[in-house]
Amino acid sequence: MKKNKLAIAGLGRIGKIHLENLLQVNEVDVVAAMDFYPESLQFASQKGVKNLYTSYHEMIQKASIDAVVICSPTDTHADYVEIAANAGISVFCEKPLDLNLSRVLEVLKLVKKKRIKLMLGFNRRFDNEFIKVKQLVNQGAVGKPHLVKITSRDPQAPPINYVINSGGLFLDMTIHDFDMARFLVDKEVEEVYAKGAVLINPELAEVGDIDTAVITLTYQDGTMAIIDNSREASYGYDQRVEVFGSKGMVKADNNLHDTHKLFDSKGSHGALPLDFFIERYMDAYKKEMVAFSESLTKGFDIPVSGNDGLQSLVIGLAAIKSIKENRPIKVSEIDYKQEISMIKKR
Amino acid sequence: MKKNKLAIAGLGRIGKIHLENLLQVNEVDVVAAMDFYPESLQFASQKGVKNLYTSYHEMIQKASIDAVVICSPTDTHADYVEIAANAGISVFCEKPLDLNLSRVLEVLKLVKKKRIKLMLGFNRRFDNEFIKVKQLVNQGAVGKPHLVKITSRDPQAPPINYVINSGGLFLDMTIHDFDMARFLVDKEVEEVYAKGAVLINPELAEVGDIDTAVITLTYQDGTMAIIDNSREASYGYDQRVEVFGSKGMVKADNNLHDTHKLFDSKGSHGALPLDFFIERYMDAYKKEMVAFSESLTKGFDIPVSGNDGLQSLVIGLAAIKSIKENRPIKVSEIDYKQEISMIKKR
Amino acid sequence: MKKNKLAIAGLGRIGKIHLENLLQVNEVDVVAAMDFYPESLQFASQKGVKNLYTSYHEMIQKASIDAVVICSPTDTHADYVEIAANAGISVFCEKPLDLNLSRVLEVLKLVKKKRIKLMLGFNRRFDNEFIKVKQLVNQGAVGKPHLVKITSRDPQAPPINYVINSGGLFLDMTIHDFDMARFLVDKEVEEVYAKGAVLINPELAEVGDIDTAVITLTYQDGTMAIIDNSREASYGYDQRVEVFGSKGMVKADNNLHDTHKLFDSKGSHGALPLDFFIERYMDAYKKEMVAFSESLTKGFDIPVSGNDGLQSLVIGLAAIKSIKENRPIKVSEIDYKQEISMIKKR
Amino acid sequence: MKKNKLAIAGLGRIGKIHLENLLQVNEVDVVAAMDFYPESLQFASQKGVKNLYTSYHEMIQKASIDAVVICSPTDTHADYVEIAANAGISVFCEKPLDLNLSRVLEVLKLVKKKRIKLMLGFNRRFDNEFIKVKQLVNQGAVGKPHLVKITSRDPQAPPINYVINSGGLFLDMTIHDFDMARFLVDKEVEEVYAKGAVLINPELAEVGDIDTAVITLTYQDGTMAIIDNSREASYGYDQRVEVFGSKGMVKADNNLHDTHKLFDSKGSHGALPLDFFIERYMDAYKKEMVAFSESLTKGFDIPVSGNDGLQSLVIGLAAIKSIKENRPIKVSEIDYKQEISMIKKR
Repeated sequence: MKKNKLAIAGLGRIGKIHLENLLQVNEVDVVAAMDFYPESLQFASQKGVKNLYTSYHEMIQKASIDAVVICSPTDTHADYVEIAANAGISVFCEKPLDLNLSRVLEVLKLVKKKRIKLMLGFNRRFDNEFIKVKQLVNQGAVGKPHLVKITSRDPQAPPINYVINSGGLFLDMTIHDFDMARFLVDKEVEEVYAKGAVLINPELAEVGDIDTAVITLTYQDGTMAIIDNSREASYGYDQRVEVFGSKGMVKADNNLHDTHKLFDSKGSHGALPLDFFIERYMDAYKKEMVAFSESLTKGFDIPVSGNDGLQSLVIGLAAIKSIKENRPIKVSEIDYKQEISMIKKR
Repeated sequence: MKKNKLAIAGLGRIGKIHLENLLQVNEVDVVAAMDFYPESLQFASQKGVKNLYTSYHEMIQKASIDAVVICSPTDTHADYVEIAANAGISVFCEKPLDLNLSRVLEVLKLVKKKRIKLMLGFNRRFDNEFIKVKQLVNQGAVGKPHLVKITSRDPQAPPINYVINSGGLFLDMTIHDFDMARFLVDKEVEEVYAKGAVLINPELAEVGDIDTAVITLTYQDGTMAIIDNSREASYGYDQRVEVFGSKGMVKADNNLHDTHKLFDSKGSHGALPLDFFIERYMDAYKKEMVAFSESLTKGFDIPVSGNDGLQSLVIGLAAIKSIKENRPIKVSEIDYKQEISMIKKR
Repeated sequence: MKKNKLAIAGLGRIGKIHLENLLQVNEVDVVAAMDFYPESLQFASQKGVKNLYTSYHEMIQKASIDAVVICSPTDTHADYVEIAANAGISVFCEKPLDLNLSRVLEVLKLVKKKRIKLMLGFNRRFDNEFIKVKQLVNQGAVGKPHLVKITSRDPQAPPINYVINSGGLFLDMTIHDFDMARFLVDKEVEEVYAKGAVLINPELAEVGDIDTAVITLTYQDGTMAIIDNSREASYGYDQRVEVFGSKGMVKADNNLHDTHKLFDSKGSHGALPLDFFIERYMDAYKKEMVAFSESLTKGFDIPVSGNDGLQSLVIGLAAIKSIKENRPIKVSEIDYKQEISMIKKR
Repeated sequence: MKKNKLAIAGLGRIGKIHLENLLQVNEVDVVAAMDFYPESLQFASQKGVKNLYTSYHEMIQKASIDAVVICSPTDTHADYVEIAANAGISVFCEKPLDLNLSRVLEVLKLVKKKRIKLMLGFNRRFDNEFIKVKQLVNQGAVGKPHLVKITSRDPQAPPINYVINSGGLFLDMTIHDFDMARFLVDKEVEEVYAKGAVLINPELAEVGDIDTAVITLTYQDGTMAIIDNSREASYGYDQRVEVFGSKGMVKADNNLHDTHKLFDSKGSHGALPLDFFIERYMDAYKKEMVAFSESLTKGFDIPVSGNDGLQSLVIGLAAIKSIKENRPIKVSEIDYKQEISMIKKR
């Protein structure tokens, strides 16, 4: 088997994780890396990556690669994918492709035209827990799914500047839950009702975002999903799902630091959930890179497509609109030409 | 201490439970019982109740009682409370007082005027699990509450005729959850958004009811509660709550038949939740009667007031209106003069 | 059905519990009660027991009864059973029948001769948890049982005087576990190895008892059981069992005060086991009285026989001998004529 | 920092795991590998190990190394350690050093004389779960430890030939538990009582081994540990520990495949423990190599010393003697000159 040659663009925290995981995948060779900061490239160099670039364009032109893994800042994603697509190079791109819906559609059109593979970084789809739940649902263990419940709470609110650029709670955080809601039961969402509040950081109100939310999704078949979010769970990263159906219910709980139970005169005491996404999804990130590599080398279907990114974005925009207008919003109401944002940039 | 003399009206399933529990309370004597069917009165007789009646009016007039426990059919509640109130007799009444809001207001007005004690049968307030959660919330264990989550699923859907008379899902089942949402965090609800579907029994659609629902409640302080309901959970009576706040999260799980865990080559296996409300709330029913008795004999405040019943009814009516109009409804929109119902009587 | 007439002898803590439970059993009438202290008899009187005695002999002679429930002090058990047996009256007797083995054999001989029913108070056999484990074992859920594990720890060490009269740890506490070891897998014990220490109350060493122990039992088929005991578990009454076999493992955990889980920045926190045997076995005591009543009225076999008491006593004596001689002891080594005791009376 | 140069001897299953883990440790370079089979050396070669040998002697002489990791068959351990010691090279050696006690003493004497570092492969000391329990014990969370409980059951019995060469159950399997019993509470064992049976594979009886055992250890301070073992747990690798003390109890449970809970009409269902030691201790193996590397490069103490291996071996020999003589054996009874073995070689 001829190994596929890969490049990586962007060597921030997640870029480094993807690089280390790719180095353990036998099917691929990481032959090039790109970052604006030469210091970041040192990391790749130490790991044995031979060709280092500070320009994405240059890397795509000069490095002879089959695919590129894009982990650069969000506002470069759309451009970088287009450049790769035009060069006939397949792409793994961290989510989101873009926060602007028409720009996303433009990119997806080009991807289709150029027939490259494009995979989006919805890492949770590779988590052991959620895969198990999905498998049991697929096997009919709970019968026909009636309700999906997703709890997703971060351990600590991000700085206000992050929120301004991220698109806000629904587009940087809940978007994973929107994807999960579609993933677990293989159904499309028809309507969104979102309710939110600023309960943690009052500064958020000034920029028009929220930090606590509950969202009701109605699928096309009339069944429902509920998501609850908080930017700050004092006890760690809370990631739970539940699917209730005609024949039963299955749920996945948090992964804890350990299983210990201490009993003393005050009560029983145990461990907290793993701290944050890096720890919780460590293994999922690894499987994600394996899946991308295998889709390249073994011709498997891309497990998370551009359309998956699109659907979650549309649901997110509907959630934003729902908060603004305090009414349920059909996803069909989202005007692809119109940019919707909760965030007032300062 | 002079014992209070009590009567019981209605000896169906719940009436018998209340009677047996009252017989174990030292502070009170059950001296009279009323039911339309003489056969039902036999039960009371065997338990040592001396004065038996087939007419409620007659019992109130002739039996010399301090209080009456009303467990008769829902459509008698309002009348029976009024009769007792006019006789200066205190009342424990199973919920709901009435499904018609203006009628409820009428009754509460009389109760206030006549200064009798009126306690409503929100039995879950006396459940060990929920009390523990409320205590921890009160003690500040989770900080300022941000989100309340209530899962409430019955093991088996009731017959269609029950639903027609009960007022439907929101008024016969979710009403307990509306009360729980107020109880756990001591906050009042300002807005209701409900989404529902008929996923279990298609006949329900014909009468205008639903069997599966998710409801978002917004409290006056902007924080939220989510309730999810199903008429039929194949694995038993699912009764869980969770309160998430600025400093932590507390949840109460189902009470299981036993703690056994069996590990074999196929997996690990454990017990199911207790079958239904009789088993799950057996102990709560006992504490409820103790609480009512003590409010009579020790002058304690009534732990579940007429206003508690009123608030849950208003939230339920708002939920019905929300389903009908597919929009969030402020509880202030509920017109006290206008009867709202989801159910078309056949 | 003609109701059986019962008497109760001894109205201490456990006597009162048995009386209250018997009053709820439809098949029997408690017509007489006996206690040395007239004040204790008041309790029975208030509960409606008509015939009160301060002499056991007198009660057996005068009260026209079918059976007697003996809850008087241990040193009266053997005599009281004999008196009842000679009068042809069936007996429920709290364990132990006697701490002296030859005395126990004497009593059992008379019981057999007089053909009365004799049931011993091994209450744990009626516990929901242990019954579930036994049922699963019986159904073959774990295949052929290889190992039984029993953890049994009291919340607080008893006063030293109690220990002197009780026969010590193995005869007052572990004896329940010896019975459980036989009960769970329906096997007889052949050999006992016990190891113990005084780790809680040094005074115990003076009277020759221990407060912490591990005991290995070998069944006649070569399989094994392990018991671990402590007189003082700071976190409450610890009562767990596990059966491991060729096809799986089943275990029962402690019953907790409630199911709450609190997550805060320090960890997760939950409830402790129920405080002590009164709470933990509340329901088992009720079922025990139902079982005794039904064995009288429906002709069912006695569920805990005199032989069950005998076997546990012999195992207990072997454990005492094992500690003294620090070697495994065959139960066949226990000389029925010779009284073995770990306890030096002061 | 100058990197330490390491060699690895033996590239079977565990050798490969150690190699892969060492390659991720920054402090060391694996510069040489040795195995009798050239095919096995390919694995090392592919991973970038430069110097490959089929002779251990040759590797020690020619490869310029600071330390060697020995994963070759058990009967080579003692010789290989001596060769390294004589060359002044530090050693990580898989357990056991040897099954013959006098041989072990000989080797340890040389190690001491040559002042090399010797670390033994008790991998479980690096397991997250057990470390947490030990930390809590060290911090006084359970007060003074009174009882240690260890459950250790393999998923599938090994072939009979493995057992013949391994030294049998106590020396190949329970030896990890003996080490754990010392590790968790930092106490030395004084006496051993073991009881065993052949319940899984009757062939074992022919070679004098057992497949099911319970072992009582008495520490020098009079407190106790209980170990229970089975060669075959149908539900997977069962690895649990518990420490009970004067102020509380702490336990660690199995690591499961996932956290899912499925509730259907038949019960609740969850995942099984991880299959076997490779999965369960994957992370511990990594930490073990980090610890060895750091003891070399940072001058830390060796976390598992030659004496730790010696103590566990002596306890194992005492257990064998206890089974043979059916009596408790003081570890001081183990004659260092005399080889004790339960296994009759066929």
